[in-house]
Amino acid sequence: MAELRLTVSHTGRGNAIECTTPAGAKLQFDGGEGSPSSGATPMQHLLASVGACALMDVGIILTKKRLAFTNLRVECVGTREKKGETNPIMGVKLVFHVDGDVPQKAFDDAVKLSVEKYCSAGATLAKSTPVAFEAIVSNAKHSG
Amino acid sequence: MAELRLTVSHTGRGNAIECTTPAGAKLQFDGGEGSPSSGATPMQHLLASVGACALMDVGIILTKKRLAFTNLRVECVGTREKKGETNPIMGVKLVFHVDGDVPQKAFDDAVKLSVEKYCSAGATLAKSTPVAFEAIVSNAKHSG
Repeated sequence: MAELRLTVSHTGRGNAIECTTPAGAKLQFDGGEGSPSSGATPMQHLLASVGACALMDVGIILTKKRLAFTNLRVECVGTREKKGETNPIMGVKLVFHVDGDVPQKAFDDAVKLSVEKYCSAGATLAKSTPVAFEAIVSNAKHSG
Repeated sequence: MAELRLTVSHTGRGNAIECTTPAGAKLQFDGGEGSPSSGATPMQHLLASVGACALMDVGIILTKKRLAFTNLRVECVGTREKKGETNPIMGVKLVFHVDGDVPQKAFDDAVKLSVEKYCSAGATLAKSTPVAFEAIVSNAKHSG
């Protein structure tokens, strides 16, 4: 068992909230009822954290396989459902894309390993929130 | 049912990952295997999102009750457990603090309502990850 600790602070400016990690990175949150802010909401941070966690592992696996990639990215879709006053995410779909000379099979394998085996953010949700995925290679060499 | 959509992109610089929300806010992620980065990890974003979501509602409730507050903040503790290659959060503890002339009962009520009734990020996790909480008022008027 290990602990992850953070302090999250209300700024007193509207609904703006900040968190500085022990290493000094700053996270900013905003939104909520009646907020005109363009800040990222907590739910956007939550969804993006799942995509980022899996994407980081995909990048590590492709690099280990010495596969050059560009525009590695993941579209994240969280399906929300009204539950009383809350609006939780009930399912996540991650659609991974990459450009470059990456064989489809290698990309499929990297994505599957990342989501199913290595992603701790996904595993946190997946105890009750299904995380589905798809892997799409756009190979610039073969286009046009 | 509603959908939350985001695209999360690998920068190609180490493990650094970025996400720009539709409204233009930028989220940054880093860390992972062998990274010397001081960037926030996906798991830090995930934990902070739960604290931020509940804290935002606490601020809204206190403001509606016309209770002046300063230093409203929440210490977030995520308990992680090794599960295969992942290290998911298995439980969350949120310890809310506020300074100022906020009655303990009012703060208790605001925190309980926020965590149990209004927090969508907490509700996303709480289907399988218990979210515990505590509320502490440090009233400057009565100290010293």
